[in-house]
Amino acid sequence: MPLNPNAEIEVTGFNWVPDGPRGLVKDLRVRWALEEAGLDYRFRGIGLERPAGYRDDQPFEQVPCFSDGTVRIFESGAIVQYIGEQSEALLPRDPQQRIRAIQWSYAALSSIEPFVQFRTLLDSFWADNDWAAPAKPTFDQLARLRLGQLSERLGDKEWLEGSRFNIGDLMMVSVLRLADRGQLLGQTPNLAAYVKRGEARPAFQRALNDQLATYREHEPQGEAA
Amino acid sequence: MPLNPNAEIEVTGFNWVPDGPRGLVKDLRVRWALEEAGLDYRFRGIGLERPAGYRDDQPFEQVPCFSDGTVRIFESGAIVQYIGEQSEALLPRDPQQRIRAIQWSYAALSSIEPFVQFRTLLDSFWADNDWAAPAKPTFDQLARLRLGQLSERLGDKEWLEGSRFNIGDLMMVSVLRLADRGQLLGQTPNLAAYVKRGEARPAFQRALNDQLATYREHEPQGEAA
Repeated sequence: MPLNPNAEIEVTGFNWVPDGPRGLVKDLRVRWALEEAGLDYRFRGIGLERPAGYRDDQPFEQVPCFSDGTVRIFESGAIVQYIGEQSEALLPRDPQQRIRAIQWSYAALSSIEPFVQFRTLLDSFWADNDWAAPAKPTFDQLARLRLGQLSERLGDKEWLEGSRFNIGDLMMVSVLRLADRGQLLGQTPNLAAYVKRGEARPAFQRALNDQLATYREHEPQGEAA
Repeated sequence: MPLNPNAEIEVTGFNWVPDGPRGLVKDLRVRWALEEAGLDYRFRGIGLERPAGYRDDQPFEQVPCFSDGTVRIFESGAIVQYIGEQSEALLPRDPQQRIRAIQWSYAALSSIEPFVQFRTLLDSFWADNDWAAPAKPTFDQLARLRLGQLSERLGDKEWLEGSRFNIGDLMMVSVLRLADRGQLLGQTPNLAAYVKRGEARPAFQRALNDQLATYREHEPQGEAA
């Protein structure tokens, strides 16, 4: 159980978010990596109204941030890579396998996530705009193109590089969970099954449960479940 | 002059592209990193009609790809990081400085590039769609928010982490060049000046000249400049 109030590693996330983004907020990626690596961490919860000076930690006012007494960083991709460097279970030492894992982490964030994210925004935050419906075919085509290409590459493999889970899978599954929530994986059943394999990992389950428990503890008065 | 037909490092890019994307195609980032690191490379040019089997190298049919006899990878962020690991000039050895450079590389690709890219697509590939004009204020606001936050963080520093250029700056300048081309840097003169500092580096100039020379060599018959 890596959640430990005396740990040196500190992860910053939100104390509470509405139902919509629950289970997708990006400190989950970092919690998951720490659970996979077996590294204790403490959680620093902040409000949606960011505390004074928070831009010093995170210039874009997003979560997560990470510190451990040696480094202080933001960007989930960089944090997960840093955690991976402390755990061969997450980031192989072999040069080819190592950089391939990092390659997939970049691919998740740069070649998949933006296309999925903008497509899903058309059905959520942007849905009330007059331009949202007519824009949907263009964004749909883009997202489905990339997901189809990824599906072809994954094929019937268990993880992106074969039988071994690494940070690339952790980031890709995290990104594909957003596509799954947006019902974009219907045409790529192997990606849907890949997401389920990721979500079935005990480390993911612990991380998700801890994130959701944080939100429940800070449920606004009168709205508690 | 790292371009060397006998080099072990091979970079794949396009032989030719139309005027619009010239100077922005992503093998430029890798060429630039190799010039900064002083590593020889050979260039493998492919056509816009990708060669048979190209998805084995790059599942999304993009450029660049990279190989050196030890690794074979794609994703410009991962490639530039791999090159940085062979050159302290590009990626410091100090743990905090090192991971901060990597953090900015992820930030460039994940927190800045998508917002700039989708905004500029509204003025280019998507301009003829009826929804493009009404969507512009939303995308404009998003892009300007992120660019404003980045501008605040850069302040009057020479590079993102102070006086020392690293892979984070290489990736961020590369991404901001797209914003500059899309005339999105008018309200953030320090970012515009940061781009100019990056472009003024001799390694960038050599990389850009070599990319443009490749296109000139493969200019279609009857359309030569």
